[in-house]
Amino acid sequence: MALSYTVLGAGAMGLRFGVLLQELTGVKVDFVDNWQPQVDTIKEQGGVYVSRDHENRHLVPVNIYAPEEYHGDPDVLIVFAKQMTLQDLLERSSHFFAPDHQYVFSGMNGMGHIEKINQYFPKENVIGGTCLIGTVLNKAGDVDFIGKAGAGSINLAPQSGRVDDPRVQEIVADFEKANIHCNLTDNFYGTLLTKVVFNSVINTICTLFEIQMGQFIKSPAAEKLGKQLINEAYDVVERAGIQLLSTREEEWETIHYVSAVSNPLHYPSMYQDMSKNRPTEVDYINGYLYDLGQKYGYQADTHNFLRNLVHLAESTRQQRGHGE
Amino acid sequence: MALSYTVLGAGAMGLRFGVLLQELTGVKVDFVDNWQPQVDTIKEQGGVYVSRDHENRHLVPVNIYAPEEYHGDPDVLIVFAKQMTLQDLLERSSHFFAPDHQYVFSGMNGMGHIEKINQYFPKENVIGGTCLIGTVLNKAGDVDFIGKAGAGSINLAPQSGRVDDPRVQEIVADFEKANIHCNLTDNFYGTLLTKVVFNSVINTICTLFEIQMGQFIKSPAAEKLGKQLINEAYDVVERAGIQLLSTREEEWETIHYVSAVSNPLHYPSMYQDMSKNRPTEVDYINGYLYDLGQKYGYQADTHNFLRNLVHLAESTRQQRGHGE
Repeated sequence: MALSYTVLGAGAMGLRFGVLLQELTGVKVDFVDNWQPQVDTIKEQGGVYVSRDHENRHLVPVNIYAPEEYHGDPDVLIVFAKQMTLQDLLERSSHFFAPDHQYVFSGMNGMGHIEKINQYFPKENVIGGTCLIGTVLNKAGDVDFIGKAGAGSINLAPQSGRVDDPRVQEIVADFEKANIHCNLTDNFYGTLLTKVVFNSVINTICTLFEIQMGQFIKSPAAEKLGKQLINEAYDVVERAGIQLLSTREEEWETIHYVSAVSNPLHYPSMYQDMSKNRPTEVDYINGYLYDLGQKYGYQADTHNFLRNLVHLAESTRQQRGHGE
Repeated sequence: MALSYTVLGAGAMGLRFGVLLQELTGVKVDFVDNWQPQVDTIKEQGGVYVSRDHENRHLVPVNIYAPEEYHGDPDVLIVFAKQMTLQDLLERSSHFFAPDHQYVFSGMNGMGHIEKINQYFPKENVIGGTCLIGTVLNKAGDVDFIGKAGAGSINLAPQSGRVDDPRVQEIVADFEKANIHCNLTDNFYGTLLTKVVFNSVINTICTLFEIQMGQFIKSPAAEKLGKQLINEAYDVVERAGIQLLSTREEEWETIHYVSAVSNPLHYPSMYQDMSKNRPTEVDYINGYLYDLGQKYGYQADTHNFLRNLVHLAESTRQQRGHGE
């Protein structure tokens, strides 16, 4: 029998996963969000406006609910909140959680969400992921899928490490039908942290300067900055006994390639928060690496400094009155 | 007999010192500069336009020369170049240097200038200084003295440590007559480096974000950023055996007071370079502290990271096409 899905956090990425599953896999998908303007707008419109690379904007009917309104019992929850609002979203949704049979997949940026999800769901039911997919929410009820259909991919890592779990394999099969290409791995923390390290460099620095990835990589200072952050992050992660997916040198090569070749015109997702005068997720990226280092007596001072520079930029941006 | 002065580097601060000495002390002052538009403009105008706090703009006749044109033999050289152009200025001026009897005073920001000056002058003839005086060059031949007459002060430190040197005392007397208030000290490196540490925080960060000092200090992140940089700088300077003029805590209090109370609307001098698309002096401030630490096996990584962030900002600013 087909699985049913509920997307928790119907922002850019949540809408992308849910709409593709609904359209291409034919499964039942509901959406739940704690951002009331999103819920209200989509209800009023009778769906969400979807574009692909700024073109072919069309209305896709979707079922959306505020957490308190929802009483479904999906087989799988797909969680794509911002780290700062996740706790609120989980608390307000907990009445429909059924940890005895529901699985949870989350592909959120940063770290910290797994601990929060584990307050409600055992690790056997949790799948972490990292997404190499760009999606932009233009405004409430209006989303833009960046990149050609089928381009981009995700890593999935069951928290149990059990890649042979039949339910995990069903979910992967549904994602593949939805044109979301999956790489399944048993290295849970290594997979998630590899993306954290990537984001701690490119996402954070591009946000700090409000620049595109191509503008970053063109500077002669980029390699020095990137390698200093990578080295410090790897020093932390090695002390925590976590095996990342690439070496330090490979990690820099990836950042270089993605910035110079794949996505030079891309503004990372954290930039979207900064440019809309919202707080960024930097505490869950560079801040997470700093905190993890602290546990092992290691001072990841550069990550901490960069995190505080982003907070300074948030503050000065507000003082200048750049609001939405 | 009255001393004669030649200002080497007739930018904002060089013009301020020279014009005040000429007007208030009545001594002979010549100006030499390696920035040809400055020399040409002042010659054409028959002098330099001087304002005070944006008001009372008037022409002050001054003698200005390109280095090769000049053949005077002053008693004292006042050096106020940018760190990046100092070597060129010294080389092109060396034909009129007379290290057997000429003294040199320099109040430049950053570090590195003393080593270059010592290639031509023995330490017995060199006086370092730090200036708590804001001055802006609006354009070639047009300078604005910020702050009321007699406000602000300078620290002077003979490189020999000999504050009782009669020539040093003559110079101090001339500066005092020129309404430039002097604090004479025998702690040469401590005096210079105390200003470097100050600038490594406030000057560099305000330049990075192109913000006023008051905007910096209002952010809750300011104290964390400032103290991290101060601690690292003090770790370096202590290893080098140099005694700064204040404790770590006092240094932060000074930065806080100057930013919040004395000069909240001030854009530090390095900002003036960034905003005019010129390279900044960050390598001679944060970069100097990093290099000094390296000599003693200490990694001042935060200063190095911040230095490279400024270079990234220089580079992205150019890519965006913010020129003069």
